[in-house]
Amino acid sequence: MARQERAVRTRKAILGAAGEVFAEHGYAGTTIYDVYTRCGVTKGAFYFHFSSKVELAQAVLDEQVGGQIAYLEVPFTGDAVKFQEVVDIGLLVGHRLTFDRMLQGSIRLAVDQGHEIDRRVPYRAWIDVHRSLLAEAEARGELLPGTDLDDAAQMIVGAFSGVQLMAEVMSERKDLEERVAVLYRGLARAVATPEVVAQLDITPDRGKRLMARVVAEADDRAREEAGG
Amino acid sequence: MARQERAVRTRKAILGAAGEVFAEHGYAGTTIYDVYTRCGVTKGAFYFHFSSKVELAQAVLDEQVGGQIAYLEVPFTGDAVKFQEVVDIGLLVGHRLTFDRMLQGSIRLAVDQGHEIDRRVPYRAWIDVHRSLLAEAEARGELLPGTDLDDAAQMIVGAFSGVQLMAEVMSERKDLEERVAVLYRGLARAVATPEVVAQLDITPDRGKRLMARVVAEADDRAREEAGG
Repeated sequence: MARQERAVRTRKAILGAAGEVFAEHGYAGTTIYDVYTRCGVTKGAFYFHFSSKVELAQAVLDEQVGGQIAYLEVPFTGDAVKFQEVVDIGLLVGHRLTFDRMLQGSIRLAVDQGHEIDRRVPYRAWIDVHRSLLAEAEARGELLPGTDLDDAAQMIVGAFSGVQLMAEVMSERKDLEERVAVLYRGLARAVATPEVVAQLDITPDRGKRLMARVVAEADDRAREEAGG
Repeated sequence: MARQERAVRTRKAILGAAGEVFAEHGYAGTTIYDVYTRCGVTKGAFYFHFSSKVELAQAVLDEQVGGQIAYLEVPFTGDAVKFQEVVDIGLLVGHRLTFDRMLQGSIRLAVDQGHEIDRRVPYRAWIDVHRSLLAEAEARGELLPGTDLDDAAQMIVGAFSGVQLMAEVMSERKDLEERVAVLYRGLARAVATPEVVAQLDITPDRGKRLMARVVAEADDRAREEAGG
């Protein structure tokens, strides 16, 4: 394995372990020692990648959107309306939140107060992603007249963040996908035209189905590359 | 002052100070010493009311809904539709969140992970309040056909909790009332009939106006009692 590739893998392993430990213990309860022993990396290797706990936590927060966007880049063909992509981000991230410890840790850092990390980073990134998608949906005439794109993007991101938090508190995320689907049925009616709402697939298991499609397409690509 | 009245006041002073200290330092960063020195109460008086930090934090959480409900009991006459009360809870609590340290502290306890307090208590209480109001609104034909009351109540409470959290992170609550108004315009369209939506007052300064009315009515009552 080339040195650069190894470095990328080590960084990824550290971020994964950090997400897990932050998810379990929060920022204050996490030590750098916990993180590098969790992923079997030496202290020296750790400090090659991250100089401090602050820097590590900021990277986990940055990864929150970047890490999920990879899943969202697969074109969801067959979905006629653009607004379905807004819904799909919510359903897919909701599904991943039920098992992805890295994502859970990143969200915990964004929610918890009392640390010096800039918690605005993931909110800003999610708002940007939603604003772009909403602008495309608007250009296709899918939104209710008078919809303010900034307001709508912030409403969707804020509401999602609260609904997933409530599901964590109330059911340890057991009803998270159900709660997220209910929210998006409401948000769709708040923002999209009735014609668009009628075409949307907003079901609690859609996130899981999308995830399976993403995994299958990644496998296909891997097979093609191996055969090519 | 009668002994019982003094005890009620001391308890209230302790809860107020506890809310402030929890708002500033979170659960882990708060000591009982911080709380009783903040409100000028002796250690002995403190322990007469609360046996531990856990018990104190739970009381602050319990107070989150109970303390606000007092403001909501004033009948908001002149508002023709019941759904306006759902909106008014959000706008009033949103307004109070910009300055009420006790409420800020209680919300921080409900959001922060990593302590042994039952964070479900305020969510459950808010959901109950909303479910009752929505049932009344439904009986008056104000809701869209097929609205599930439990789903709607949970959606509103969850979405509010996220939007206020995002406003805390993004603007230190400077745009909280604006964000909450945008959310309720969306939630109204998601749940209420278009006829009802058209009658609602959902403006960022309504919370402040409601608060002024509540204070004026309390002053009137106090004057009446003094004169009677």
